[in-house]
Amino acid sequence: MENLLVDIKSGDKIIIEVDGIKIGGPEKVIISGPCSIENFETMYKIAKGLKAAGVNILRGGAFKPRTSPYDFQGLEFEGLNILNQVGREFNMPVVSEIMDIRDLDRALKLIDIVQIGSRNMYNYPLLKEVGKLNVPILLKRGMGATLKEWIMSAEYIMSEGNSNVILCERGIRTFEDSTRNTLDLNTVCMLKNNFRLPIIVDPSHAAGLREIVPNLSYAAISAGADGLMIESHINPLSSVSDSRQTVSIQTMINIVNKVKCLNINL
Amino acid sequence: MENLLVDIKSGDKIIIEVDGIKIGGPEKVIISGPCSIENFETMYKIAKGLKAAGVNILRGGAFKPRTSPYDFQGLEFEGLNILNQVGREFNMPVVSEIMDIRDLDRALKLIDIVQIGSRNMYNYPLLKEVGKLNVPILLKRGMGATLKEWIMSAEYIMSEGNSNVILCERGIRTFEDSTRNTLDLNTVCMLKNNFRLPIIVDPSHAAGLREIVPNLSYAAISAGADGLMIESHINPLSSVSDSRQTVSIQTMINIVNKVKCLNINL
Amino acid sequence: MENLLVDIKSGDKIIIEVDGIKIGGPEKVIISGPCSIENFETMYKIAKGLKAAGVNILRGGAFKPRTSPYDFQGLEFEGLNILNQVGREFNMPVVSEIMDIRDLDRALKLIDIVQIGSRNMYNYPLLKEVGKLNVPILLKRGMGATLKEWIMSAEYIMSEGNSNVILCERGIRTFEDSTRNTLDLNTVCMLKNNFRLPIIVDPSHAAGLREIVPNLSYAAISAGADGLMIESHINPLSSVSDSRQTVSIQTMINIVNKVKCLNINL
Amino acid sequence: MENLLVDIKSGDKIIIEVDGIKIGGPEKVIISGPCSIENFETMYKIAKGLKAAGVNILRGGAFKPRTSPYDFQGLEFEGLNILNQVGREFNMPVVSEIMDIRDLDRALKLIDIVQIGSRNMYNYPLLKEVGKLNVPILLKRGMGATLKEWIMSAEYIMSEGNSNVILCERGIRTFEDSTRNTLDLNTVCMLKNNFRLPIIVDPSHAAGLREIVPNLSYAAISAGADGLMIESHINPLSSVSDSRQTVSIQTMINIVNKVKCLNINL
Repeated sequence: MENLLVDIKSGDKIIIEVDGIKIGGPEKVIISGPCSIENFETMYKIAKGLKAAGVNILRGGAFKPRTSPYDFQGLEFEGLNILNQVGREFNMPVVSEIMDIRDLDRALKLIDIVQIGSRNMYNYPLLKEVGKLNVPILLKRGMGATLKEWIMSAEYIMSEGNSNVILCERGIRTFEDSTRNTLDLNTVCMLKNNFRLPIIVDPSHAAGLREIVPNLSYAAISAGADGLMIESHINPLSSVSDSRQTVSIQTMINIVNKVKCLNINL
Repeated sequence: MENLLVDIKSGDKIIIEVDGIKIGGPEKVIISGPCSIENFETMYKIAKGLKAAGVNILRGGAFKPRTSPYDFQGLEFEGLNILNQVGREFNMPVVSEIMDIRDLDRALKLIDIVQIGSRNMYNYPLLKEVGKLNVPILLKRGMGATLKEWIMSAEYIMSEGNSNVILCERGIRTFEDSTRNTLDLNTVCMLKNNFRLPIIVDPSHAAGLREIVPNLSYAAISAGADGLMIESHINPLSSVSDSRQTVSIQTMINIVNKVKCLNINL
Repeated sequence: MENLLVDIKSGDKIIIEVDGIKIGGPEKVIISGPCSIENFETMYKIAKGLKAAGVNILRGGAFKPRTSPYDFQGLEFEGLNILNQVGREFNMPVVSEIMDIRDLDRALKLIDIVQIGSRNMYNYPLLKEVGKLNVPILLKRGMGATLKEWIMSAEYIMSEGNSNVILCERGIRTFEDSTRNTLDLNTVCMLKNNFRLPIIVDPSHAAGLREIVPNLSYAAISAGADGLMIESHINPLSSVSDSRQTVSIQTMINIVNKVKCLNINL
Repeated sequence: MENLLVDIKSGDKIIIEVDGIKIGGPEKVIISGPCSIENFETMYKIAKGLKAAGVNILRGGAFKPRTSPYDFQGLEFEGLNILNQVGREFNMPVVSEIMDIRDLDRALKLIDIVQIGSRNMYNYPLLKEVGKLNVPILLKRGMGATLKEWIMSAEYIMSEGNSNVILCERGIRTFEDSTRNTLDLNTVCMLKNNFRLPIIVDPSHAAGLREIVPNLSYAAISAGADGLMIESHINPLSSVSDSRQTVSIQTMINIVNKVKCLNINL
């Protein structure tokens, strides 16, 4: 892996700026929001709470890659419109997952960061296409992907000209079944040491259980992660998807505060 | 998973017919060919040998999903043209992987079966799109995918109207590193017992080592698989990709003969 | 791994003989019996059925390594006495697991083959101790053990002087949760190609579900395994442990017959 | 898992005291020392450095469970004698692994905490035997063990009367091969929430690479671990075993200081 663009030997650490927020710099970045965008009102209330909590970037799923074709597939562009409106209202950049190449052009008018989900980490045509864009790409790790493969997926994007790639570790699949996945902080450390891209951690999908999300968040920051992406809701129990791993706004307040405190002491 | 189209409770076992070859019936189906289509002459020689060996369907990669963006990405449509010509010459249906939705229309004029590769098993926009087609789809298991997720990916295709789905087990990722992947025949047995779709096995990717491909082939047939997909070449050592797991034409002759013999005795 | 006793380069393939039964030779060896020895009468009936079915060696658990300390721990020496009596009655050698070094001397008067269970594959003091014995050792693979570690555990035994080691693959731990473990036939092929010891397969623990045990058995034989070890009972549903993976005597008759037939055709 | 002694519902959190050091209380406990005890002089120098660094408990391997029978197996009782002398010299309690039941009596005169290694987590005769002792037991997680199995191994010890069990997470086996194992902090969080025993983390074995040991240490503490066990040496490169994952005394000074600082801010 000598001459890769992603390799630390090829250049400086990459810091990505979105609306004045720097990802990969000394400040830790907190991304939060609901698994699925449900409606304007709920999204508005969530964003209001998160903004007050000190969250930097708003997330919300509009195109949902669900295991079953019969599960709720998201509000699609209607959802992106809501996210866009709410983000502008609270002056927060927004990120959402796009799965279909054909949706990119239209989506780019509505979102600030394009998320490539775990299920599409190996979708090379999609990676090449977002590599031609001029917006930050949040690239989640595939649930069964090695560090090397993940880095190579980032290289697919960078090799097309777009170096604004944020990596997101979200747990890998193992034999351990008491949690949804196994958060792999070893890999976070390896990425910080050997590669140029900022790396954030999604403890929500790694845990699958809201009660351990705060502690995994502190662990991630202490391991060296540049930020967190956490699923939250004004009423976690009523969340239309991933309810079991969604935290409340109050929990987000606690997490943001402790992350700041930890960051000073690391 | 009660009311799924893919469930055995929802209907008869599905048998897929391509040019008179039945996949999922009493005869075992053998698919073979090179990892990558390299040029007309090589493909012609390989197909000639495989036809004589009794192989039923010809495979060859034209769009190659490579881990590195700098590795050979395949001959693309030029490759499909070669595959199409050679297939017609020897009266063999052909299968090749398509990764990009935008390539489907053009590819359908050249291939008989569309392969969805392991890396795209969760690519739901692609699955939905091939679900609207009227050609058989060969759906490989994701390298870190559970049986349930795989079945649900098949359901994505079937729910759009296309029931001609062939499942292909190709090994899963485990801690064992002496072979490329771990062939999961447990899952082959579970699929035969509980679901409607034909299931074939790709021992080449499961093993990563050509010397154990024959024995894994016999194991797969004995476990109940409906067929095999095996990487082969007239000169395995010169294969431009996956050389280490590619077998010779002579090995294919041995495999085809022993599979026939085993099938009579099972 | 150049100069290991276990390596194929160090000597001939090892064939182990117990009461005239050869393990590792051209004939496939079938070991069967209940997970736990329950009482004399049940063991007698099971053995009678298995003998008639053509099973070669009788198994039965007396010292049970249970995950919970509160689960049935086996009849211990009372169980071994029953196994010994029944084995002599039907002229079948017997195998049972010993976990505690301090039990070895007494157990050796009652059993013909000492089983080292998956949980003790890394128990080096125990391995060294059975390495000093002159009886065959059946060494099961640890549930999370690599091929290399397993081979090294065999080497621990052989390096003390006892070359009569039978390896037993019983499934490894993976993310796939629809079956108890994932049977790893890749490793069976690798062992046959590169090492000297006979290798048998335990499809019962690999599957965890009796309905797929026959097909996994045929797969194992076709992959090249030297034999099978299968949990059986005259009344599988009443088995005090591992009931869900235990097959009936009738199923054992079918398996023995088909294995013979397959072996002729491989 | 309702009525287990290990369950939080069965009683208070257990705090274990060794020579005035409390494991499981508000202070974080740091255990460190070489993988193998090599000789008195080296051990003395290491202990001197570690004592000055603020390390609480001294570790050193005397009975080494090595994958190969031909690798250095440790100084055995000579090693324990050295460890005992050095520990007394610096007024530090000592911990070392015992694998053979027959060594327990003699070892108990020399060590303060008995370590049960990953390879013996399922060695139930050994667990029962240490369950009858009145000394703290440090129980490492098996490399392929589930949370449930691990907890049950602790229960084996507690059910015999010894509640002084310290759990130690040391990484699990996954497909990721860029690090030796994958540190599983999800499980650390689950243990803190649902069970009574103190839990420490061994980042050395989890990582296999000394450069990421500090960050994994901070992550473990931030996840809620009660302490750390870290392999260290006065000259890591000359360590006779596990050299690649062994840190220097200077690194231990940094880790101890930052852990104290983190603990105040959590």
